[in-house]
Amino acid sequence: MLLRERPDARFIFHGRQENLAPLLEEFSELKPVSEIRHSETVITMEDKPSQALRKGKGNSSMWAAIQSVKDGEAQVAISGGNTGALMAMATFCLRPMPGISRPAIAAIWPTLRSDIVVLDVGATIGADADQLVDFSILGAALARALFDMKSPTIGLLNVGVEEAKGNEWVKDAGKILSETSGAGFTYHGFVEGDDIGKGTVDVVVTEGFTGNIALKTAEGTARQVATYVRNALAMNWLTKLGALLASQGLRAIRSKMDPRTVNGGVFLGLNGVVIKSHGGTDEIGYKSALSLAYDMARNQLIDKIGDGISRLKPGEVPDVETVSETPST
Amino acid sequence: MLLRERPDARFIFHGRQENLAPLLEEFSELKPVSEIRHSETVITMEDKPSQALRKGKGNSSMWAAIQSVKDGEAQVAISGGNTGALMAMATFCLRPMPGISRPAIAAIWPTLRSDIVVLDVGATIGADADQLVDFSILGAALARALFDMKSPTIGLLNVGVEEAKGNEWVKDAGKILSETSGAGFTYHGFVEGDDIGKGTVDVVVTEGFTGNIALKTAEGTARQVATYVRNALAMNWLTKLGALLASQGLRAIRSKMDPRTVNGGVFLGLNGVVIKSHGGTDEIGYKSALSLAYDMARNQLIDKIGDGISRLKPGEVPDVETVSETPST
Repeated sequence: MLLRERPDARFIFHGRQENLAPLLEEFSELKPVSEIRHSETVITMEDKPSQALRKGKGNSSMWAAIQSVKDGEAQVAISGGNTGALMAMATFCLRPMPGISRPAIAAIWPTLRSDIVVLDVGATIGADADQLVDFSILGAALARALFDMKSPTIGLLNVGVEEAKGNEWVKDAGKILSETSGAGFTYHGFVEGDDIGKGTVDVVVTEGFTGNIALKTAEGTARQVATYVRNALAMNWLTKLGALLASQGLRAIRSKMDPRTVNGGVFLGLNGVVIKSHGGTDEIGYKSALSLAYDMARNQLIDKIGDGISRLKPGEVPDVETVSETPST
Repeated sequence: MLLRERPDARFIFHGRQENLAPLLEEFSELKPVSEIRHSETVITMEDKPSQALRKGKGNSSMWAAIQSVKDGEAQVAISGGNTGALMAMATFCLRPMPGISRPAIAAIWPTLRSDIVVLDVGATIGADADQLVDFSILGAALARALFDMKSPTIGLLNVGVEEAKGNEWVKDAGKILSETSGAGFTYHGFVEGDDIGKGTVDVVVTEGFTGNIALKTAEGTARQVATYVRNALAMNWLTKLGALLASQGLRAIRSKMDPRTVNGGVFLGLNGVVIKSHGGTDEIGYKSALSLAYDMARNQLIDKIGDGISRLKPGEVPDVETVSETPST
């Protein structure tokens, strides 16, 4: 349980009082550090983002959780709900940070070297060069906050590592990034799909369509190979005996490949942190999402992002006062 | 060796006579069914496509191999060389089939169900809706030729399965495909990245940037998981003993995951078939590429594609005589 490892964590649960109260009664350690906020409206998985906004702005549990971040009551909002609705509400309520045009969803991706950050994995469809540069700032700040590194390496996901490869916006972003310095990251260059699993760089940057497909293709491939291994070890009594003897090693892989241990897509680029947990996960998955949230809050992710933006584009960052007056779309 | 399984196969080797002749002397069964065609110029891995065309058009071994397909001497050309140069030369020499605007590279992808076709994995960067429809025709014809099926299922790779998801060209292609019938395939709808490994459909269609990244991400993930398994089984003497007992099962996975057994990117949409084999492969990898070539030739892939085009867009397919006069770009 998270609270044993991070005893200063505090919780606000948003939802229907009648559902949450009996649940909280079951956890004697959690209850004293928790508070329930009742919301009548609950956003469902079927609500489209625009519907969710109309139906739930101001009065749903999802909105209330995000609002508590905006009001400074909470440092991170976590939801296992509808991703599209959560992104729409988070963007509407928290608004993009000055200097960032659109938020991104970052995944923490286990690799052969260590965990890395991959973004965007689904907030955007298509991106121009400037957005890919924004994603580099955001991803680098997340890597600095989570992995305790000074200048994470950034790779732009492409179909080859040569300068002439890829589409125009990737090439343009590569040119911009190779001219940056002192921005809180080190630009490595282009990386290819197989560089993700190798852990060639600390942060892999791409637009959301490609990133989402890469993420799900990797999940599918991992499941496919795991099935091959399971079937191969169940082939006959000899392989079964072998599997029994090797069970310590096999358990280690299982926990390494457990998608619950790196649960949580981080919404980056808004004035506040929101984490989307897998909806179908269990207490282990939620604990991962909560640990992620805790570490981001303690390591002041938002400040690190702000610092990254002001270092890379000092001219573009308007006065904060002005920005808070600007209506967002 | 391929010749023992497919005794009517015949070979033309293109390259430097002085390099090829001593090699062929070593294979007594191969020599009587083979012929060497000398070319002075050899395209290297460093040549850019445009350079390769200037340097090697008409006089390189790569060009000669493709020309032998155009002349009807060979039914398939196979090269382990420079992919970009091979695609440029193949497109220039063989030209796109009537009704097809741009060629694609198809991969044969092993899944939990069976092998499937995924295209484009790198010939194009970006595609409009019509190109995705062309790729569907091409991929379906390849699936019909290789897997002996009447109406393979087609899925469009997207970030969600709902109609409203994705970018415009994927949505538009989905609309066009859902209105087709009798085109030699069954349109399934959108599929996501993890549907590839599941084998949800027989043919996954996407543009080349995304397809290439999905392919390489999957290769990287498979290698990553294989490394986890290897390390876990080498953990201690007990897991090592277990691995020894389970070796029959583990060998089965190794051959299942061996990238050499599905070696070969198929260039589709040209007036002739060209296969790109992995350059760094060995005799097992080349045998896979050759088997693929043989099966495509015997199952009349080109006729099947032509049939698919004329069924789906009868109006657009001009008279073949006219087309052969049209200069291609």
